Amino acid sequence: MKSDPKEQKGWSQLWLKYDRKRDNGNGNYFERAAVQGFDCEDRVVRSALKELSHGVRGMLGRTVEIIALKEPDGFGKSGERVEPSASSDASLLIKKAEGTERGIRPEGYAIREEKGRLTLEAADEKGLLYAVFHLLRLIAMERGLAGTDILCCPDNPLRMYDHWDNMDGSIERGYSGRSFFFESDQVIVDERTRDYARLVSSVGINAVVINNVNVKQAATWLITDRYFEKAAQMAEIFADYGIRFFLSLNYAACMELGGLSSADPLDPEVIAWWQGKMKECFEKIPNLGGFLVKADSEGRPGPFTYGRTQADGANMLADAVRPYGGIIIWRCFVYNCTQDWRDRKTDRARAGYDNFIGMDGDYHENVILQIKNGPMDFQIREPVSPLLGGLSKTNQMLEVQIAQEYTGHQIDVCYLIPMFKEVLDFHTYCRPEADTVADVISGRVMGNQNAGIAAVCNTGNDENWTGSDLAAANLYGFGRLAFQTSLSAEEILEEWIPQQFSADREVIDTIKKILLTSRETYEKYTSPLGIGWMVTPHEHYGCSVDGYEYSRWGTYHRADHLGIGVDRSDQGTGYALQYHEPNASMYNSMETCPEELLLFFHHVPYNYILRTGKTLIQHIYDSHFEGVEEAEASAAAWDTLEGKVEEKTFRLVQERFQRQLYNAREWRDQVNSYFYRKSGIPDEKGRDIY
Amino acid sequence: MKSDPKEQKGWSQLWLKYDRKRDNGNGNYFERAAVQGFDCEDRVVRSALKELSHGVRGMLGRTVEIIALKEPDGFGKSGERVEPSASSDASLLIKKAEGTERGIRPEGYAIREEKGRLTLEAADEKGLLYAVFHLLRLIAMERGLAGTDILCCPDNPLRMYDHWDNMDGSIERGYSGRSFFFESDQVIVDERTRDYARLVSSVGINAVVINNVNVKQAATWLITDRYFEKAAQMAEIFADYGIRFFLSLNYAACMELGGLSSADPLDPEVIAWWQGKMKECFEKIPNLGGFLVKADSEGRPGPFTYGRTQADGANMLADAVRPYGGIIIWRCFVYNCTQDWRDRKTDRARAGYDNFIGMDGDYHENVILQIKNGPMDFQIREPVSPLLGGLSKTNQMLEVQIAQEYTGHQIDVCYLIPMFKEVLDFHTYCRPEADTVADVISGRVMGNQNAGIAAVCNTGNDENWTGSDLAAANLYGFGRLAFQTSLSAEEILEEWIPQQFSADREVIDTIKKILLTSRETYEKYTSPLGIGWMVTPHEHYGCSVDGYEYSRWGTYHRADHLGIGVDRSDQGTGYALQYHEPNASMYNSMETCPEELLLFFHHVPYNYILRTGKTLIQHIYDSHFEGVEEAEASAAAWDTLEGKVEEKTFRLVQERFQRQLYNAREWRDQVNSYFYRKSGIPDEKGRDIY
Repeated sequence: MKSDPKEQKGWSQLWLKYDRKRDNGNGNYFERAAVQGFDCEDRVVRSALKELSHGVRGMLGRTVEIIALKEPDGFGKSGERVEPSASSDASLLIKKAEGTERGIRPEGYAIREEKGRLTLEAADEKGLLYAVFHLLRLIAMERGLAGTDILCCPDNPLRMYDHWDNMDGSIERGYSGRSFFFESDQVIVDERTRDYARLVSSVGINAVVINNVNVKQAATWLITDRYFEKAAQMAEIFADYGIRFFLSLNYAACMELGGLSSADPLDPEVIAWWQGKMKECFEKIPNLGGFLVKADSEGRPGPFTYGRTQADGANMLADAVRPYGGIIIWRCFVYNCTQDWRDRKTDRARAGYDNFIGMDGDYHENVILQIKNGPMDFQIREPVSPLLGGLSKTNQMLEVQIAQEYTGHQIDVCYLIPMFKEVLDFHTYCRPEADTVADVISGRVMGNQNAGIAAVCNTGNDENWTGSDLAAANLYGFGRLAFQTSLSAEEILEEWIPQQFSADREVIDTIKKILLTSRETYEKYTSPLGIGWMVTPHEHYGCSVDGYEYSRWGTYHRADHLGIGVDRSDQGTGYALQYHEPNASMYNSMETCPEELLLFFHHVPYNYILRTGKTLIQHIYDSHFEGVEEAEASAAAWDTLEGKVEEKTFRLVQERFQRQLYNAREWRDQVNSYFYRKSGIPDEKGRDIY
Repeated sequence: MKSDPKEQKGWSQLWLKYDRKRDNGNGNYFERAAVQGFDCEDRVVRSALKELSHGVRGMLGRTVEIIALKEPDGFGKSGERVEPSASSDASLLIKKAEGTERGIRPEGYAIREEKGRLTLEAADEKGLLYAVFHLLRLIAMERGLAGTDILCCPDNPLRMYDHWDNMDGSIERGYSGRSFFFESDQVIVDERTRDYARLVSSVGINAVVINNVNVKQAATWLITDRYFEKAAQMAEIFADYGIRFFLSLNYAACMELGGLSSADPLDPEVIAWWQGKMKECFEKIPNLGGFLVKADSEGRPGPFTYGRTQADGANMLADAVRPYGGIIIWRCFVYNCTQDWRDRKTDRARAGYDNFIGMDGDYHENVILQIKNGPMDFQIREPVSPLLGGLSKTNQMLEVQIAQEYTGHQIDVCYLIPMFKEVLDFHTYCRPEADTVADVISGRVMGNQNAGIAAVCNTGNDENWTGSDLAAANLYGFGRLAFQTSLSAEEILEEWIPQQFSADREVIDTIKKILLTSRETYEKYTSPLGIGWMVTPHEHYGCSVDGYEYSRWGTYHRADHLGIGVDRSDQGTGYALQYHEPNASMYNSMETCPEELLLFFHHVPYNYILRTGKTLIQHIYDSHFEGVEEAEASAAAWDTLEGKVEEKTFRLVQERFQRQLYNAREWRDQVNSYFYRKSGIPDEKGRDIY
């Protein structure tokens, strides 16, 4: 097996670069590996073993000899020796776990070291792949493997990346170049497809949606002969890495492709068309997992057009994919996007719950509702959606976004794992205990398997995949968190930084500090206390305090000369009451509402005294000055890494920091000036406000 | 000569539709026309006679017999009878004026009726063409020609349309479809080219720039063999109608095309390149009049890059075109478009004057400085640029914009001629008398011929040319006003409406009222008292009060909780002092400043009492409510024309009125809410503010 960590492909290998590491005695475990209970010809096993050889050669300079035990038709074709002998002389034993002994559940694995010998035991082929990546991660982190004793099983059944790639090659909300899945209405399958699959499977991703949820033009045709062949080729590569292949679906495809006059989910013609189409899809794309659907949202067609419910629409499709083990992931991002800003009764935050709670229990078993973490749209701070845990009889999946649409466009640093942790740890009070969002979406609350977590992905065809090298922390971190929810944001960085940058302690600590403070820094210099928005319309980067204030999007701050915020209490839109108690009461009262969300739930006078003893207006001024100072400190910290990280990376991130500082100062000055001009209340500290 | 007024071409004929008119005894003048002193084979004379036949046949149902007197080699080739006899039996005598008898100056003409016989006397071929169009206009207006006695000479030497058409077919700030000059980087020459030339020459336009002043990509190549042939073909058609053909020039063409390393206007290599290039251009395009140049503006290259003056750049090019009678029109739209909004000392309004006044007198005789009517950028209300009449030794040309960039995108009705009249009538006090802008740009102040007026044009390939049929009033009106500055805005409509719509009195009065009130109506519901902007960034349609407030464009209103406006007095940026006295003092003082410009020149408290006795804030509220009411009244007035104008036109304009009302209400509510929220001062009348 070849291994060439230095090969030049035009794109980086991120955390799989496998450059030489300190051995720490680890090399000895990779003299000879024996494989037992796995078919070495299995596609996933092959990928795992290939990765093992590749990683070990790169990081430890060793060539692993791999022996298939009792597998005479096994691995030999690739040239390795095949010996049906005992495994006693192997320094690494790879074996399939029997049953669920030692708690190794599906896709799970154990890694143990005893007496100079490593044992890697996996529940199944995917478990083996994840185990290999875990092992390679430990080597990259320069951890000595002696005494290792690890048991690891994924917390979430579905761990998914949703790509918003369009078939023309553009990416909706993409900040890292163009698509590597599509260009000029063609599907691209090349060596980068495989590297993508390696990268995301290495952090435990087991499902990928390759096209934008807004399915338009050519993308509608992805479920036709025009694209089946290429889609199947890509799906095959994904299958090598245990990744199920998903497509976003145009709900109106039965009209656009099928020529039907309706997309009514109860119309027998529509049902028949979809049944035929799904049969075709699953036959032509063997690794197809199912479909993601955005219906009745932001102009997309859906069952509402025909007076049907969301459940009617989702179930019809789900029934059509059920014979093939397929699932339908149905997005809950349904709201009125042509709202009148003058109307203070309609509240976009209410919409997801109002639209979906009534049909709880009506969805078929292979439908999953995909729910954004907050009720609005991926802002830097939102409360958790009350649908999560609000639904009690429906499969639920959490949707987050690592594409930094509202969080800095991968120019500004914003490590999002701490935010996702908050969401996962949130107590929904859907039952007396084990009631967190993590409990709900893992399937622990309802005992369901069709559950999990998805992230809108942040990749593109930039050399470094994610625009800024620091944004890869989210690409890495989301997968790891999805696999192992208990990992802390810091632990994830302790893993990622040595793999992608350097195991040097100073490098780790510096980058860790930059990233762990980045979300709060970004929050400080942008919109205050959970109010969100205030961004440049359409683009969503940069400040425009009133940018969405008089618009149709339902996104208002309602600032006047006396105060700011949206009253979502029982005196206002009543949104707070969508939560289970005691959350409802907590949010409903200005006194008990967590202050970081104060303006999301309440309209608050500028002279209101916060728990810090500061007035609201002074908090706005102070936090904006602090945010810029913190960003400056992070930029300065990065500067200290010159010569300690690769030159190209150093320069690129340094340049992004300069743009972040410009952006942060604009936000600071525009927000402060806006509120000073509106309130007439000066900064207590007399700093520059314009 | 054929005449078929009903021919279907895919585009309308606007005011040249020549449909049947009441005769009023006019038909008798068109039995037989005799031409004396003009070469009937001359291209412009041919156009004039063809138009005469065409119009008379359409409107009066007559076939004019045209006889060339004493021109044996004359008109006969086209089939008409040629009789070298006396003109005594002709009912229409067309003759060339001898010398400047009876005050007929170049391009001028006289039309007289005596004893049942019309005499049309013109200074030259262009004068003849304009005379014919004048005669046809009178017929279209159903005026009896008996007793006609008209002398008409153009007030401005150059009467120009500037098209901002790009070679890909898009139009910068175009609201009427795509370009009919370019598509897919090709020059289009077809029947529409001729109709365009007919239309604009019919109102006296004698120069046209066909491409965008922002010369990029393929447009840079317009001055090369790649396009010479097609450009020359278009220029030939223009020549048939007395229109000189102009191109916008890329100042850096010597680098992009010539491969030079510099565009320094004093560099001998640069000079030599341009001399060769201009020789080539004028040889290849015989009807070329010269070039329009936007340099050192909004990212365009220019002489500033090389530490040279604007005069250095303009003169270098002017010297290169002088041998061919060419002129260089040099735009004065030079300002800092990367301003810091925090900076209150820099004032974009000052920039034109500051950048150009110092070189007054340095420009060569065939350079004309083209100066926008206001110091900012085509807002609904601006003071007149202090450069106009500020320059005293430099050729000046006024630039206005009939493309409704900031004035409603040809959705909202906005008849701009009243605004242009205000500009032309403005006393610059550049000398004791005859000191208006009209005096300056006509050449009367300085006795120069290289002067005139240009409008950024509002056409595109829409069937009706101008998006809204009502926007054609500006296309028509600008030309007429440029030709005859003394025409009132109302007189122009009295001409235009019968030609384009109907000579029915009710139609005329209704459309006239809609148009004559439209500019003030638009002003009322948009930005108040001369402050301008408050538009959606980039797009420039729709309200965004703070849209340009924190931007780099130098366009601020500086509203805070106490007041609004930019202090441009001697206490502020000092802009007011750029005017001659007594204008400077008038603008400098809040008490004497015309109130419609109050916020342009002064920062004014909301409780300031205007001359009406209203506070400023109440004026803002009232005018915004009034503006919407007036727009509603205009929409209702249009509705009364159903059945009285063509159905297609009726529906199209009706639909635009609906969009205008939506826009107007958004402006009203956003502006009122913005200032209510900021000031906290309620509307005295308790109307809905949000």
